[in-house]
Amino acid sequence: MEIKFKPIGVVHSPLKKKEDIQSKKYAFPQGFDSVQGELEISKEYEDGLKDIEGFSHLIVIFNFHKSEGYKLYTKPLLDETLRGVFSTRTSNRPNFIGLTVVKVIDRKENILKVSGIDMLEGTPILDIKPYTPRDQKSPIKLGWLEDKIKQAPKSQ
Amino acid sequence: MEIKFKPIGVVHSPLKKKEDIQSKKYAFPQGFDSVQGELEISKEYEDGLKDIEGFSHLIVIFNFHKSEGYKLYTKPLLDETLRGVFSTRTSNRPNFIGLTVVKVIDRKENILKVSGIDMLEGTPILDIKPYTPRDQKSPIKLGWLEDKIKQAPKSQ
Repeated sequence: MEIKFKPIGVVHSPLKKKEDIQSKKYAFPQGFDSVQGELEISKEYEDGLKDIEGFSHLIVIFNFHKSEGYKLYTKPLLDETLRGVFSTRTSNRPNFIGLTVVKVIDRKENILKVSGIDMLEGTPILDIKPYTPRDQKSPIKLGWLEDKIKQAPKSQ
Repeated sequence: MEIKFKPIGVVHSPLKKKEDIQSKKYAFPQGFDSVQGELEISKEYEDGLKDIEGFSHLIVIFNFHKSEGYKLYTKPLLDETLRGVFSTRTSNRPNFIGLTVVKVIDRKENILKVSGIDMLEGTPILDIKPYTPRDQKSPIKLGWLEDKIKQAPKSQ
């Protein structure tokens, strides 16, 4: 069984290659907050953006278009231990689907200027959804990541 | 350009048909918190679940398998005004991709028991990711939804 999707747009990002993203300076929770970019939505979907600028944050679902495969165990950037792929946010996963919550700066027609971009230039966008109170969970437990986040460098 | 995915598992849910979900009793933020179900991950991916029970919350990305089309303007359950489809969480969107954050109750091999299910029985699962501090955004602005949420019935 295959499920097919078609990009609704493309990401424009200062991050041009994988190594730009996989830096430990970005590993702490606010790491990408200052990274700005654009979500260019295809003209045919522009009308679907009505009212979107009223939301402060959007969930962007995208295709990890540079991924080439996956393993069921993977060593995260912040860890020395092999973890189950679904316990990580690696781009090398069974389905090459990524998710990031970005902050809306402004919208001009079919272009959304946003911050919090951790996607590569040219990333195909699959969906945009408003971030709502149902997406705010607290308190949360972080398993293997709990201690690692505390140790992450807080440069920038 | 088409992007193809393959389900990694299936949702088991007490919600059997669309009308079970589209009730206003679920429209407030904690509406689905008490709805329990299971994420049955295919045996071939079971090893990828290692360490996942350490996380309290998971992001589930799934296929709205009962959707049949979309319009660029849609009237949300809680509203009387047509909104841009990307300003809503409707299942009738250009790509039939859904997203819900669920709470982990426990795991037995390839079965995750979770709460916060708003998916239909039989929903194909595309990905599972750990919910992390990067997904916690606050404060947030909710555009057209702001007032509607306050008015939502708080039954249950």
